[in-house]
Amino acid sequence: MWLQRELSLAPKARGFHLITGDVLEALPELVNMNTGLLNLFIQHTSASLTINENADPSVRRDFESVMSHLVPENEPWYSHTLEGPDDLPAHIKASLLGPSLTIPVTRGALNLGVWQGVYLCEHRNHGGRRTVVLTLQGQPAG
Amino acid sequence: MWLQRELSLAPKARGFHLITGDVLEALPELVNMNTGLLNLFIQHTSASLTINENADPSVRRDFESVMSHLVPENEPWYSHTLEGPDDLPAHIKASLLGPSLTIPVTRGALNLGVWQGVYLCEHRNHGGRRTVVLTLQGQPAG
Amino acid sequence: MWLQRELSLAPKARGFHLITGDVLEALPELVNMNTGLLNLFIQHTSASLTINENADPSVRRDFESVMSHLVPENEPWYSHTLEGPDDLPAHIKASLLGPSLTIPVTRGALNLGVWQGVYLCEHRNHGGRRTVVLTLQGQPAG
Repeated sequence: MWLQRELSLAPKARGFHLITGDVLEALPELVNMNTGLLNLFIQHTSASLTINENADPSVRRDFESVMSHLVPENEPWYSHTLEGPDDLPAHIKASLLGPSLTIPVTRGALNLGVWQGVYLCEHRNHGGRRTVVLTLQGQPAG
Repeated sequence: MWLQRELSLAPKARGFHLITGDVLEALPELVNMNTGLLNLFIQHTSASLTINENADPSVRRDFESVMSHLVPENEPWYSHTLEGPDDLPAHIKASLLGPSLTIPVTRGALNLGVWQGVYLCEHRNHGGRRTVVLTLQGQPAG
Repeated sequence: MWLQRELSLAPKARGFHLITGDVLEALPELVNMNTGLLNLFIQHTSASLTINENADPSVRRDFESVMSHLVPENEPWYSHTLEGPDDLPAHIKASLLGPSLTIPVTRGALNLGVWQGVYLCEHRNHGGRRTVVLTLQGQPAG
């Protein structure tokens, strides 16, 4: 069984945002999948997807600080600067964290660890809507 | 054909550990898969999976040094500090390296390069057991 | 439907190179796939794959500068130094960016965003040929 669908996410502030609920809401058919995989693919080059702690919001705030510390704005040796100081760092952060996730599906649910949640990582100051292609495949429950 | 199984790994010291053998041992059915993919997904937010050099242990030692240099402990601007100085850096490292791998399966074996091995990346000082969900799919040998 | 094939890429200069065209050329059957996924897996530990901006070459030049700034050569505390100063940093960069990509396939095409292209990331000064295993699966059209 294959199912593919676009999830369009409303514009978000620069930073890290939990979207596990949005993903589940977009895939009501997930409950009928016994064993499978869900692929999430973000169609952008300055936003990314990752999985991390789903509880304490201070983790997500620190993600923003640490990533912006690792890849700072306004380095004099950057050459791609026409689209603003947040643009090139956003591209690099997007590749460091990656454009896609593949999550196991087991007995009708995402088989995440207790503390895991899906993050949309918005690396631009004004990123606009973001589209994530969801591809679900596997064996439906008998 | 779909097969899904949990691999539970005994607690490991902080650092980078080759687990290719553990993965193969947990999947005796792999030899019967002609063409497919194996997904490995770690159910934790302070440990991760990557693929790198399977020979010289100095590479794995340097991974620990470099990652801890990139994301140091005890930065005064960290806010998520209640679980110890190794906790927030562990979350960031886990997302930089990623929670999952998808490896091609060809004629009954993982189609890795000659020098490639699967690493469990333990980012905590005392991380405990780690669970990896293995999902194998593909076409069995005729 | 499953299809697996090796793509062998001619040696490239250290840096970031667009290979979307090479991938498409190697997979003429893609046009017949209605809904599916393409996995790309590089069989090396000092080169990697990522997705980023497909237009302005200055983005790819800055990727090389930023990654080499993040993981510099010749740190006195590196232990794996026998294969040259570019070797250990190449291993780390390869794991930070990752060895594989999984891209949705929709109505006969890779479902990439308008600005997305596939990058081969060559982290060695003289890396030689690089092999990428392509695994295409899904539901054929018709």
